[in-house]
Amino acid sequence: MNIPASKNPRVVIIGGGFAGIQLAKKLKNQKFQVVLLDKHNYHTFQPLLYQVATGGLEAGSIAYPIRKVIQEYKDFYFRLTSVKEIDAVNRKIISEIGDLHYDYLVIATGSKTNYFGNKEIERNSMSMKTIPQSLNIRSLILENFEQAVLVKDEAERNALMNFVLVGAGPTGVELAGALAEMKKAILQKDYPDLNIEKMQINLVQGDDRVLNAMTVKSSAAAEKFLVKLGVRIWKNVRVTNYDGRTITTDSDLTFESATVIWTAGVQGAKVPGLNADALIERIERIRVNQYNQVKGYENIFAIGDIASMETQKYPQGHPMMAQPAIQQGNLLGENLIRLSQKKAMKPFEYNDKGSMATIGRNKAVVDLPHYHFSGVFAWFVWMFIHLISLIGFKNKAVVFLNWVYNYIAFDREGRLIIRPYKKKSFVTFTSDEI
Amino acid sequence: MNIPASKNPRVVIIGGGFAGIQLAKKLKNQKFQVVLLDKHNYHTFQPLLYQVATGGLEAGSIAYPIRKVIQEYKDFYFRLTSVKEIDAVNRKIISEIGDLHYDYLVIATGSKTNYFGNKEIERNSMSMKTIPQSLNIRSLILENFEQAVLVKDEAERNALMNFVLVGAGPTGVELAGALAEMKKAILQKDYPDLNIEKMQINLVQGDDRVLNAMTVKSSAAAEKFLVKLGVRIWKNVRVTNYDGRTITTDSDLTFESATVIWTAGVQGAKVPGLNADALIERIERIRVNQYNQVKGYENIFAIGDIASMETQKYPQGHPMMAQPAIQQGNLLGENLIRLSQKKAMKPFEYNDKGSMATIGRNKAVVDLPHYHFSGVFAWFVWMFIHLISLIGFKNKAVVFLNWVYNYIAFDREGRLIIRPYKKKSFVTFTSDEI
Repeated sequence: MNIPASKNPRVVIIGGGFAGIQLAKKLKNQKFQVVLLDKHNYHTFQPLLYQVATGGLEAGSIAYPIRKVIQEYKDFYFRLTSVKEIDAVNRKIISEIGDLHYDYLVIATGSKTNYFGNKEIERNSMSMKTIPQSLNIRSLILENFEQAVLVKDEAERNALMNFVLVGAGPTGVELAGALAEMKKAILQKDYPDLNIEKMQINLVQGDDRVLNAMTVKSSAAAEKFLVKLGVRIWKNVRVTNYDGRTITTDSDLTFESATVIWTAGVQGAKVPGLNADALIERIERIRVNQYNQVKGYENIFAIGDIASMETQKYPQGHPMMAQPAIQQGNLLGENLIRLSQKKAMKPFEYNDKGSMATIGRNKAVVDLPHYHFSGVFAWFVWMFIHLISLIGFKNKAVVFLNWVYNYIAFDREGRLIIRPYKKKSFVTFTSDEI
Repeated sequence: MNIPASKNPRVVIIGGGFAGIQLAKKLKNQKFQVVLLDKHNYHTFQPLLYQVATGGLEAGSIAYPIRKVIQEYKDFYFRLTSVKEIDAVNRKIISEIGDLHYDYLVIATGSKTNYFGNKEIERNSMSMKTIPQSLNIRSLILENFEQAVLVKDEAERNALMNFVLVGAGPTGVELAGALAEMKKAILQKDYPDLNIEKMQINLVQGDDRVLNAMTVKSSAAAEKFLVKLGVRIWKNVRVTNYDGRTITTDSDLTFESATVIWTAGVQGAKVPGLNADALIERIERIRVNQYNQVKGYENIFAIGDIASMETQKYPQGHPMMAQPAIQQGNLLGENLIRLSQKKAMKPFEYNDKGSMATIGRNKAVVDLPHYHFSGVFAWFVWMFIHLISLIGFKNKAVVFLNWVYNYIAFDREGRLIIRPYKKKSFVTFTSDEI
């Protein structure tokens, strides 16, 4: 990998998400050589992916070049690659671009979509964990409407306009809200020859409430907002299969749809090579102690979504979202510095600042530790928090400008099929029409 | 194509570029049914493609949804498709999504890159006529630098940092300037482990001056600016081949380079089906009379880059750029309305408003009909003209904001490899390095 020798011990960080970037910032100009690896050359602000998918924001507004973050850091290297394996015995990682020795290894690979082993669903449905995936969803939504204007068969046309979102967590709920806004603000005007009332947004949830990680009060408010926007909510229903056309469930309910977006589960994006003991198989997360040390290893750490720290308050590990990742990255940075100074590490304690979700124009729900609210004020809080959390002044400014424009103009100009998504054609056309 | 019957005659427009969109606007709510066809669902502002390629702007900022343009036009349809053939005998076009009858056909398909028949150059080099092509160039530039930090062989590393632009027209010159800015503003800071002085930008021109369609004075000024930015200019040199690694020319000069961007020629993007007589084979443009009527057809028109109207002042047809396209689209709209009122059509006369090119920060050249200037003021004029020419308030605002940011911060945050460009690997790595 062409990393020069250094007198400092080498920390290798796999992943430039919330956890990895936070750790990198803490290790700036400390007595370490740091090598940060990622398969993308940018950090993704995942909470806004759904706005890229629905044409409200451009991809570039929620991505930030990793090299720019570390531009002035000394003895700090970035390499664009994907790690194939960890060789803990020889203290090295094996990657597409060669091997690399580490003194400390930090796994911050995040999470990926969990299809619970159903290959057919995986093949036929869309997921939304990365920017390219979000752009694929955007292309597919628009391609479906371009096809819908062409077909004469009503059932086919309705299937093209039927969007089924599986999983009513924050991603599913926010996406459902954005699709409903898109229906009113854009699709109705852009496709005057379609009866846009036939467009359906179906949100399918396995248990009895949406946003089930939030308070009952927020769930109820979110559900009310969604219903008002015309989203159909199906609770206590589990999707059992999707062949690209028909969705079957564990009840009598079925859907005919060209588009299934799967947000029903996540699992750790693990890297092979660790002892079986360090892995929680069901969700592919890595078991860590209170210092984020991987079980069975002294110099390997895991932070963020991939790490599962089982505590009394969080017996299944912390929620897989930005806040625990940032806090763990932060503390691990401090702890590595303490280690280098021969001081004892500090145990991690999660400071739950609350959670929130937006459902559409003027609508959001916010759970703070002792206070829950929803509506217009919650929506402003949501926007403010997301704006200040974006890295970089220019991204903040461009996102703000887009939001103001979208709000005032009731519009989303990002309805662009820049790269077509080549779904195996749902409809075929004969060449005899004039 | 599922277009309803209409009492009005049907105008089919192929292409939503400058000419096609301008014509569409003129035909708004007139006594025609209009069907606009394009293979993209957006209009591209081509003059700023080079800024997308060099990370200064996001793709979405220079694209505008075609359906939004025609949102409130009556009896007006857009279809996303590519036209395979014109069947003039039966007055219909044959497309991927079916056939369509026309009363009037307008070909506004624009132009594409001309490799003058050299398939090997075509296969190995990049072109920049569309947004996806520009994004590919952006990805390739950044991928080359990510590879350059890895290789130990100096010749290979230099080839990865050597950019050869063939053709010093406006596209080649603007791209060369932007690459030179990128070198200073970004690459130098992002890749501290590379000796960025080794990065070369070579601009190869077949005749004896850059911007040879502009005045001699502007050519000289542009050349001075380019040299000042470190661009190497090679005049009176023709590239004869590029195998993906070595560029050969008609002189002793050769280059070793991983990236050739070909801007040395354009040709019409013709649609098959017209009589041989209507085509100018060498540049694949369509012969039109002074009403933009295609030679040999009464109800088929061609406008913009694809049309070649040979006049005394322009014996080879008008220059293939935005202004003639817009003016022809405008007049043809008027003429079609006149035809429907049984009035005589007006002949086209090109109003040359001048031309301009920017070379980098504070540097541009402007040729007005009777006045030529260069430098900072020309640069402001260039920016102003391009800003007001962009369609849509939001695009204007976002581009302006990006330019201000890029100028003040000496930065371009669009250095993102969203979709990797999969060039056949230039370098292979062995897995034995630690």
